[in-house]
Amino acid sequence: MSKKTLIVFSGEYDRVMAAFIIANGAAAMDDEVVMFFTFWGLSALRKENVTETPSKSKSFLQKAFGALLPKSPEKLGISKFNFGGAGQSMMKKVMKAENVMTVSELIDTAKEQGIKMIACTMSMDVLGISKEELIDGIEYAGVATYLGEAEDANVNLFV
Amino acid sequence: MSKKTLIVFSGEYDRVMAAFIIANGAAAMDDEVVMFFTFWGLSALRKENVTETPSKSKSFLQKAFGALLPKSPEKLGISKFNFGGAGQSMMKKVMKAENVMTVSELIDTAKEQGIKMIACTMSMDVLGISKEELIDGIEYAGVATYLGEAEDANVNLFV
Amino acid sequence: MSKKTLIVFSGEYDRVMAAFIIANGAAAMDDEVVMFFTFWGLSALRKENVTETPSKSKSFLQKAFGALLPKSPEKLGISKFNFGGAGQSMMKKVMKAENVMTVSELIDTAKEQGIKMIACTMSMDVLGISKEELIDGIEYAGVATYLGEAEDANVNLFV
Repeated sequence: MSKKTLIVFSGEYDRVMAAFIIANGAAAMDDEVVMFFTFWGLSALRKENVTETPSKSKSFLQKAFGALLPKSPEKLGISKFNFGGAGQSMMKKVMKAENVMTVSELIDTAKEQGIKMIACTMSMDVLGISKEELIDGIEYAGVATYLGEAEDANVNLFV
Repeated sequence: MSKKTLIVFSGEYDRVMAAFIIANGAAAMDDEVVMFFTFWGLSALRKENVTETPSKSKSFLQKAFGALLPKSPEKLGISKFNFGGAGQSMMKKVMKAENVMTVSELIDTAKEQGIKMIACTMSMDVLGISKEELIDGIEYAGVATYLGEAEDANVNLFV
Repeated sequence: MSKKTLIVFSGEYDRVMAAFIIANGAAAMDDEVVMFFTFWGLSALRKENVTETPSKSKSFLQKAFGALLPKSPEKLGISKFNFGGAGQSMMKKVMKAENVMTVSELIDTAKEQGIKMIACTMSMDVLGISKEELIDGIEYAGVATYLGEAEDANVNLFV
């Protein structure tokens, strides 16, 4: 049993999927796994329906970023051949036929396996994302926390 | 002598090139090197001319992905200023003038140096790529194999 | 006190920023940090005003790449929602309001903290970038030097 950390910087469906497949694979082998979500990677943690009022007021520009960012992991585009979403749904159809889990399912599995998911608070400020907009069961911290986690891990990836 | 692993996720010429330069550099320093090709990175391992019939039948969507993906490493676009391939051939001209190896040459060197190249079978299923379409001398495995290789490596990169 | 290395391959404002935030965070925790700038990542090290004549003559294609590449870190685009630069200035406005450092400020901090920055000489050849065009206080080396630095580091990231 060892430890792995992943920085999820990218917000594309395929990259987020790769990160969760590695994370879940490691957790299944009894590794301790920490995922640090920063910048566009935060989109993967967005709740589909936000009912609470954000605890922090947003500037006009933060609202604009919020509007541009996908509102749930299943709405993330893929990094190649996305064609305005057509490529992504095409990929998801093949995944279903091949019994490959969607990102939403991978996130649920990650939670069940006790993978620690940390949202980068500085990126949340820059992109204007409040805690109320992110899924439950995650932690909030900055780069120092990530570095502390990586210190005793033997595999650290930036996705 | 130590061990290095690289996940080649990206399918862009420049990123694949960077991965192979690091891999070959490490192998030249007597390191054990394992490269795990997943998603778009699989394009780098495609054969130019496929004569055999794929052993697995493909769905319509898998055929569509197969048609979109570049058919040899030298046809991969670059991640910036590609301009429909013009940027890539421009980069390759400068590389030739500066005696920098092409990706095809880097792959040959990697084979000669005994670098282990593994194609991710799950990605092959999603993108509809069969073994017959990939170059010889590679292995086929999933994320558990990658994690096993990374376990005793001291440098692990996600490209 | 341990050691961290980062390969800065990407030339996007947000990715370069992430790399420097991790690097500066680690240096603040007394870690030794080495950053290796290669391909598009070299743009982050370009001087705004170059007055010296390049020591190496450039081919037409190298000049073309030089003209395409951003001339200072603050001119780098962001990897998503850049909209011809509008997205980048929007992000920088929010960063200022949230007291987040710009990439230029992060580079200055990196220098003050004694972070070793290495420009990849092979990439400089391919992109036609001469030493006179890059900021002072950096080193010049190839992949073997990077691998030597990574050998005794406990976190190695490819950004």
